Amino acid sequence: MDDTLDSSLRQPLSSSNRTRVRRNGTAVKFTLISLTFQFLLIVLFLVLTEYGDHSLPPQAVAAQARLTGSNKTTAGSEQPVNEVSIYYPMFQDVHVMIYVGFGFLMTFLKKYGFGAVGYNFFIAALMTQWGTIVTGCLNQIYGEGHDHIELSIQTLVTSEFAAAAVLITYGAVLGKVSRLQLLVIGILEIVFYSINEMIAIEFLKYADAGGSIIIHTFGAYFGLALSRVLYNQKSLDNPKEESVYHSDLFAMIGTIFLWMYWPSFNAALVAPDYVAQHRSIINTYYSLAAACVTTFALSPVFQRKGSKWRLSMVHVQNATLAGGVAVGTASNMSISPWGALLIGCCAGALSTVGYAFLTPFLTKYTKTHDTCGVNNLHGMPGILGGIAGAIAAAHADVNKYGYDGMFNLWSSRAPEKNSTEHMTLTNLGVKFDAGEGRTAKAQAGYQIAGLAVGLAIAIIGGIITGFIVRWKIFDPPTREQMYDDEDYWEVPHEEYSEDIEAGNVNNMEEKDDKL
Amino acid sequence: MDDTLDSSLRQPLSSSNRTRVRRNGTAVKFTLISLTFQFLLIVLFLVLTEYGDHSLPPQAVAAQARLTGSNKTTAGSEQPVNEVSIYYPMFQDVHVMIYVGFGFLMTFLKKYGFGAVGYNFFIAALMTQWGTIVTGCLNQIYGEGHDHIELSIQTLVTSEFAAAAVLITYGAVLGKVSRLQLLVIGILEIVFYSINEMIAIEFLKYADAGGSIIIHTFGAYFGLALSRVLYNQKSLDNPKEESVYHSDLFAMIGTIFLWMYWPSFNAALVAPDYVAQHRSIINTYYSLAAACVTTFALSPVFQRKGSKWRLSMVHVQNATLAGGVAVGTASNMSISPWGALLIGCCAGALSTVGYAFLTPFLTKYTKTHDTCGVNNLHGMPGILGGIAGAIAAAHADVNKYGYDGMFNLWSSRAPEKNSTEHMTLTNLGVKFDAGEGRTAKAQAGYQIAGLAVGLAIAIIGGIITGFIVRWKIFDPPTREQMYDDEDYWEVPHEEYSEDIEAGNVNNMEEKDDKL
Amino acid sequence: MDDTLDSSLRQPLSSSNRTRVRRNGTAVKFTLISLTFQFLLIVLFLVLTEYGDHSLPPQAVAAQARLTGSNKTTAGSEQPVNEVSIYYPMFQDVHVMIYVGFGFLMTFLKKYGFGAVGYNFFIAALMTQWGTIVTGCLNQIYGEGHDHIELSIQTLVTSEFAAAAVLITYGAVLGKVSRLQLLVIGILEIVFYSINEMIAIEFLKYADAGGSIIIHTFGAYFGLALSRVLYNQKSLDNPKEESVYHSDLFAMIGTIFLWMYWPSFNAALVAPDYVAQHRSIINTYYSLAAACVTTFALSPVFQRKGSKWRLSMVHVQNATLAGGVAVGTASNMSISPWGALLIGCCAGALSTVGYAFLTPFLTKYTKTHDTCGVNNLHGMPGILGGIAGAIAAAHADVNKYGYDGMFNLWSSRAPEKNSTEHMTLTNLGVKFDAGEGRTAKAQAGYQIAGLAVGLAIAIIGGIITGFIVRWKIFDPPTREQMYDDEDYWEVPHEEYSEDIEAGNVNNMEEKDDKL
Repeated sequence: MDDTLDSSLRQPLSSSNRTRVRRNGTAVKFTLISLTFQFLLIVLFLVLTEYGDHSLPPQAVAAQARLTGSNKTTAGSEQPVNEVSIYYPMFQDVHVMIYVGFGFLMTFLKKYGFGAVGYNFFIAALMTQWGTIVTGCLNQIYGEGHDHIELSIQTLVTSEFAAAAVLITYGAVLGKVSRLQLLVIGILEIVFYSINEMIAIEFLKYADAGGSIIIHTFGAYFGLALSRVLYNQKSLDNPKEESVYHSDLFAMIGTIFLWMYWPSFNAALVAPDYVAQHRSIINTYYSLAAACVTTFALSPVFQRKGSKWRLSMVHVQNATLAGGVAVGTASNMSISPWGALLIGCCAGALSTVGYAFLTPFLTKYTKTHDTCGVNNLHGMPGILGGIAGAIAAAHADVNKYGYDGMFNLWSSRAPEKNSTEHMTLTNLGVKFDAGEGRTAKAQAGYQIAGLAVGLAIAIIGGIITGFIVRWKIFDPPTREQMYDDEDYWEVPHEEYSEDIEAGNVNNMEEKDDKL
Repeated sequence: MDDTLDSSLRQPLSSSNRTRVRRNGTAVKFTLISLTFQFLLIVLFLVLTEYGDHSLPPQAVAAQARLTGSNKTTAGSEQPVNEVSIYYPMFQDVHVMIYVGFGFLMTFLKKYGFGAVGYNFFIAALMTQWGTIVTGCLNQIYGEGHDHIELSIQTLVTSEFAAAAVLITYGAVLGKVSRLQLLVIGILEIVFYSINEMIAIEFLKYADAGGSIIIHTFGAYFGLALSRVLYNQKSLDNPKEESVYHSDLFAMIGTIFLWMYWPSFNAALVAPDYVAQHRSIINTYYSLAAACVTTFALSPVFQRKGSKWRLSMVHVQNATLAGGVAVGTASNMSISPWGALLIGCCAGALSTVGYAFLTPFLTKYTKTHDTCGVNNLHGMPGILGGIAGAIAAAHADVNKYGYDGMFNLWSSRAPEKNSTEHMTLTNLGVKFDAGEGRTAKAQAGYQIAGLAVGLAIAIIGGIITGFIVRWKIFDPPTREQMYDDEDYWEVPHEEYSEDIEAGNVNNMEEKDDKL
Repeated sequence: MDDTLDSSLRQPLSSSNRTRVRRNGTAVKFTLISLTFQFLLIVLFLVLTEYGDHSLPPQAVAAQARLTGSNKTTAGSEQPVNEVSIYYPMFQDVHVMIYVGFGFLMTFLKKYGFGAVGYNFFIAALMTQWGTIVTGCLNQIYGEGHDHIELSIQTLVTSEFAAAAVLITYGAVLGKVSRLQLLVIGILEIVFYSINEMIAIEFLKYADAGGSIIIHTFGAYFGLALSRVLYNQKSLDNPKEESVYHSDLFAMIGTIFLWMYWPSFNAALVAPDYVAQHRSIINTYYSLAAACVTTFALSPVFQRKGSKWRLSMVHVQNATLAGGVAVGTASNMSISPWGALLIGCCAGALSTVGYAFLTPFLTKYTKTHDTCGVNNLHGMPGILGGIAGAIAAAHADVNKYGYDGMFNLWSSRAPEKNSTEHMTLTNLGVKFDAGEGRTAKAQAGYQIAGLAVGLAIAIIGGIITGFIVRWKIFDPPTREQMYDDEDYWEVPHEEYSEDIEAGNVNNMEEKDDKL
């Protein structure tokens, strides 16, 4: 676009400028901090990362294997597996969910579309880099002894999963934080997220393929705790916290891309166990279908006015997705297709009821305002998903999964080294790595423990982060700046804002309609 | 979103409420029926379905094979094929076509965007479940003797194909049916669709990879018959049956996703015959390109006013897609790239002419109103596709396809058991299942017969469904409620509707512009 | 949509008709030329093309191999590779970039949304066909002696790459050319593009996996040269060259789909070298992430007004993508992840600065108006990419790539036939085709030479094309018709245009807001 356009846009700005110079230096800080952080990331990548084996020539892989004595020779063997075919299509689906899905889902606010899709874009692009480093470092400490963080398509997926948790948190405080606050929230949350993930992988060893606990529950309750700390009377009853007809349609772009690609989200990292991955796709698909139907069925009940039972776009945009969240942990388990449908129904109903009753209740009585209702979309369905996973784990046996499948899912259920069971299975010709010999019931206990630990770290992390970012130095927005792109983005036809400032609400609403 | 928003939206509603309480209990019925149906589906899934072999551990597959004596051992063999890589990426493309493609294509109406994308979402999510059961049951009756309906990624694709037929039908009656009517239409249509599909697979054995006959022709003429039965004067000349500038852009999202992913639609189930699948992709791609160019070339001819020959968004949104419909049946046949281009040109021209002349003609003289013009996009191009497929079948020989390829495409062309040809080929080392020894000409006859049978079942099914859903009990919309989300959805700034009711057309149009 | 709608739309047209009959026969010409060209393409496809080996039955491939004595037997061997799995998912991502990405990116203009997404659709669908023929013919001349142009999924990708160059050029002249001019520009540009590509492949043999030079630099400077020749005072300071709030959101759909799928653009044709493809994905991913962060960090600096440092949607929509352009050439080279981040940072900064300073400068002092700023998004980052590729080539050695990887990337670096090195490597068991024995430094020189040649052909081609299409016979738009769908598309509620003609700017702006 020509800059002549830009200059013509600036003219109305100069008048509004005089009246609204309230903050100073915010953007300088934002520019400096984000540039510095990006340069820091380049240095960290230089020092800490290298291409994974699948991006290196076989000779280099073999040479390194000789040096480190690791088991890399298999990766450099004669017939390399095409990892791109296995991981890339699902990675791209997850990628679409992060940038189009989350980004457009949040555009429902009439005056905050640029902030929704734009900040989502910025924060996701930054957090995937930061996530690569932080999760990579923690894996290094307890990991298999590579001398660098090795990058592969799986790394991209795990980095985007970390970013997803931050974006869920953003949903809770959408429109109520400055971009500087958001940047700080993201940087801190990734650290808490990675600690929780490390505990899951290294210590509790619970299964959570779709991240019901690790991503959704974590992101949601981190966000709610954060929102509670940031709470002040300003954020209530803001007339800008509304949608218009076309902003609801933009939000549907986000909803539907999230909904469609959710099976990839739950199944992406289940490969190369194709049996479990196939199951994960089917379970997620049917759970989402049931959640969608249940949401449409129940939504009008809560929006009725006399004989009019209307559908709510809030429910359709959000509760339909709860089926994907709730089936996450159990998606690669053998829960039967009808079990997936049942989970989807419960999740859709729980989420719809949450939007109807719980969100206003939380705002009013617990002072926890939740712009996108992430408690209903990610929080409660995530907990439901954690419980469903524990139930499935409690009923897992070798008839349903085979030894391979079961030990893939829960490595700790494999017999301990030198145990009688270990020898028996080895004699039967089963190949596996030694585990901890957990029973099904014990594994279910660890699943629940994982849920509890995740909730605790999320809430503590959210509170700590909240107390940090509410400092004035991070320029929290004023009431007028909330849910409004006006002061943060070059918005076409800025004369609108004059009316808003004049408090002429009728006039403002008419103008809004025009948008 | 906060519910405080919802309550603020409800205020203007109470006044409009008094004036427009015309129906009662509609939404109660909708909620009850859709919830009951969803619960019924869970029970049906519990009783009738299980994971397919690719989602089960090898041991379970082998054990079941021993019990049933079926040929399952191959699927559980040592080197399992990664079905996810083969089917999943194309399944996801079809998935996008169903939910984003059809959903946004129908958002062109200025006041019916929520209904278009929302009901499309709901009905597709329900119909894929119902399609799984109904097509699965009919396949069971004549199928290979599995004791359950086995779910796999292919099942998801065939279920979405069934849903696609319903969504095409929805296009014919868009804005003219209540959500309760739509629900009943979908439930009934899936049954007729499955009967026609079973006849195609079990008896006539015609090839129809892209569903020109089974999906597009069927869905379109079912919809036209239905629309004819539901016809009343009310649906004509409704000022709400119009687009606005941005609703046409939303519709383009649907158009372009449908157009881009159409090669996947036609090729998804052609796997694992990679040769034919490769051909299907190339043919569909070029046919669509030619249809797009032809539509742009011809559209201004029909929209000319003096020296102004303008392009019509109606044509661009729809006729460009006719190339994908018309090449459907023949897409995996050896029609040469230029043949694909020719089919695309004809389809684009036919469809554009249809929009310009046939749709108004049908409305006026046959009382068949067709909101999205599905006759032009799916109906006539579908028939063209059926004929093109028959021509290609009539010219099929072993030089073009090889024995494998030919018997994959048309299983009936394989020689009959114990025939001389059967022995000759077996002696040559060709591996195949015995067929019916059809000649090329006979196969072409069966292709045409399939088209005729599909048309007949569609029209009869549409008429029967029409007579059922026009009962008052299913709450058909009033004239004011047509093409309008107002009474069915919580629409932001509902005061608009007051003006519409007051009949102040000028005023209304201004307001619409603002949206 | 019903045509009754169309007729109701025509009424306001008749009055405006009398006042604005300025051109005659434009659309007739457009219809005739595009139809004729489409028919010509069908004939060319009939004469020149056939299915590639992967779409033919093994017998046919083997028979043809016997006839031509070529090495086709491998393709028809017992274990055919599934080319669909290897190429199709990335092809579809590129497909989305071409039609949704470029199409919606250009919808930012408030009154030119139909033209942006519509003409993009038309010209891409035509240019992929034309690109198939022209690039195919030139490859035939110097190619491996097939008797036809063989179509495969790779052909579709290369054809869309050709179309991409035309669409980049369209960005430079967006809103300033008639559809007839655009058609002629596309037909001519494809010829220049193919000549440059042939020089790259057959003579200079430089690596350019992501097309930084061949596609981006070429398309951008072709467009700038064209825009310079077409320049006249009319195109400056047009009040229609502006966005509105929702048109900027539509443009974000294009931006984000381009951004997300860019790794596929750079990696699509790197297969079947999976190691390099894996690297290409990772490099492109991180480069884009860094470009996005840098753009967000720098944008407010250039848009500041006193204490307000606002983000510009122009920067967010465009400069975020520069990372994908700039890493294109080097994406499959061994540049390390931190190198990719650095390239992305530089590209994002360069592009943002370009939008802020260079575009207005070019318009004012060189009379080169650039509607979408393709110089900043494709031109300068493309040159940066070419240089980065040359640097990477200069430092390439066998330790980083292995012999296979290095000779795959730069076939000329393989030793010459009968050279000592050739024999040494052959004795070591390395399999390769003989090359030219280039050194790393020499290859770097050829990379730079390729950049210079590409620039020269682009600029000369653009100038020639410009002098052709500025003839009156191609109906260049008048000032009123620029950046405006009004005279070329049936636009809902056409009465708007009356106001525009009346020159009532205040009034017009109000109306625009309503859209």
